[in-house]
Amino acid sequence: MDNSFFNRLLPKEKKFFPLLKKISDVLIATSEIMIDCVQCENHQSVVEYYKKIKEKEHEGDFLSNKVFDELNKTFITPFDREDIHDLANKLDDVVDGINSCAKRIMLYNPKKLPEDASKLAKLINKSAISIGKAIAELDVLKKKPAMIKEYCRELHDIEHEADDVYENFIINLFENEKDGIEIIKLKEIVSELEKITDIEEHVGKIIQTIIVKYS
Amino acid sequence: MDNSFFNRLLPKEKKFFPLLKKISDVLIATSEIMIDCVQCENHQSVVEYYKKIKEKEHEGDFLSNKVFDELNKTFITPFDREDIHDLANKLDDVVDGINSCAKRIMLYNPKKLPEDASKLAKLINKSAISIGKAIAELDVLKKKPAMIKEYCRELHDIEHEADDVYENFIINLFENEKDGIEIIKLKEIVSELEKITDIEEHVGKIIQTIIVKYS
Amino acid sequence: MDNSFFNRLLPKEKKFFPLLKKISDVLIATSEIMIDCVQCENHQSVVEYYKKIKEKEHEGDFLSNKVFDELNKTFITPFDREDIHDLANKLDDVVDGINSCAKRIMLYNPKKLPEDASKLAKLINKSAISIGKAIAELDVLKKKPAMIKEYCRELHDIEHEADDVYENFIINLFENEKDGIEIIKLKEIVSELEKITDIEEHVGKIIQTIIVKYS
Repeated sequence: MDNSFFNRLLPKEKKFFPLLKKISDVLIATSEIMIDCVQCENHQSVVEYYKKIKEKEHEGDFLSNKVFDELNKTFITPFDREDIHDLANKLDDVVDGINSCAKRIMLYNPKKLPEDASKLAKLINKSAISIGKAIAELDVLKKKPAMIKEYCRELHDIEHEADDVYENFIINLFENEKDGIEIIKLKEIVSELEKITDIEEHVGKIIQTIIVKYS
Repeated sequence: MDNSFFNRLLPKEKKFFPLLKKISDVLIATSEIMIDCVQCENHQSVVEYYKKIKEKEHEGDFLSNKVFDELNKTFITPFDREDIHDLANKLDDVVDGINSCAKRIMLYNPKKLPEDASKLAKLINKSAISIGKAIAELDVLKKKPAMIKEYCRELHDIEHEADDVYENFIINLFENEKDGIEIIKLKEIVSELEKITDIEEHVGKIIQTIIVKYS
Repeated sequence: MDNSFFNRLLPKEKKFFPLLKKISDVLIATSEIMIDCVQCENHQSVVEYYKKIKEKEHEGDFLSNKVFDELNKTFITPFDREDIHDLANKLDDVVDGINSCAKRIMLYNPKKLPEDASKLAKLINKSAISIGKAIAELDVLKKKPAMIKEYCRELHDIEHEADDVYENFIINLFENEKDGIEIIKLKEIVSELEKITDIEEHVGKIIQTIIVKYS
């Protein structure tokens, strides 16, 4: 136990944990707004949702920059530094991905987003919640590697589910949509949604690496 | 000689070499199936080829995960760790790229793939064979840096050849294909084929870095 | 001062600084050619501009390979090695991005590039100049962290400006261009221009990391 990840580094690394937790909270909140955004059929409301997501993205940036600043100021081993840096960075990539996708929806203004977009936004949110739980378990007092592995497995399963939704969407799109411009718009938006679940799965892989090294 | 890459680390690193060789074998086998896949005009057969490629991709994943697990368990210097990790990772990226491209062909179901797709699949296979030879030369007993450099040069040349094929394809596509939806499909598929040769060249760069450091 | 980045490492690292400066000079020259390239309406001249840019890209490759070779030969700490490697690599990515975009313009041969393409090329050049100034300040004798931070802030601001130009372009494109094939061509070209300013901002982030660590 004394050799576990955050314990071993305490109190020096104590400051990183709450920051990572906060970034995952920002991610969950952002993914919730995204569900509303893809289901919304009114362009003005899409613009509003995008603005809210953008604010969240700024919060995420602020927090991950704080992590990077602290890392540069704190003397820790290159390995620990790299792990914390990767985790903060990849969490930020998820929030950035959601922001970029919401912006695309606003700019492209497609006629109507398919039901599959809504399914994907819900999967992104589901993964965000699993990430939040996994990071909470990295906490000093309640760390349970078995639980963390389970959350990371969930991220893997959700990513596969998102793959299936995307495949189904593409087959339907090319079969049924005859407007080339609408195809361009919808394909890019839905593909970007699917890729967000890939990044979320990647977050899980980084957390698992930490678990393997320090448990 | 005692200071050479695998020698110096033996017997600790002996276990990594056969795994890397196995991944390169998986890559060669996958690239062979891809040649058949892009030449096939029957959608049901494309689905079958994709399934075979997917199986290979799972094999590749299994092997590279084994490398990562071993790396996390083995005490070696960060530098060696990083090199082996990068090599396994990038080899896996090539197999993933082929898998992703085969899936796209299956999902997009274009009317007909151009001859250039077939040329690119053959170049991917040719690079895969060069990678296999370079990795075989990394072996303890028969390591010959000059040979390895030659194989890496081949990867570079093949990538340039693939660039030319792609350029020729794009010019023809925009000049002759008037169906916007078919343009979207073909451009993405052929572009993805070309990018696989980029990743294969990158594998060569990682191998060269290893040679520079440890020879 | 004796503990500052290049001082501390002198004379061992003295050789890296002039190389990095040369790469930034190549970048500035490349970005200047790009301004002419996007404003040119004659296809044969576009081909000529592309050839000039390609030569610059080879120069950049040659210089960054020299940095990598020197890094592999020079004994320095992993951290310094990583920073110099990242900086040379990312500078090279900017030049590659410009080269790739010029090639795309040549291959796609769109009817006419919009005014926004020209605005973006000028922003790319403006960022290249700020990068050149920041790298000049990393120099041993005249290093001024406050100035460097200012140049990096400029890169950030220019990237935001480029975002706005791109957004405006996309809205206009989907509203006014009814030719699906032209949409595909223009969207890819202009999107690639915008992404170059992202990479330039990233160069600024790497420089800032160096400043934080070594000042």
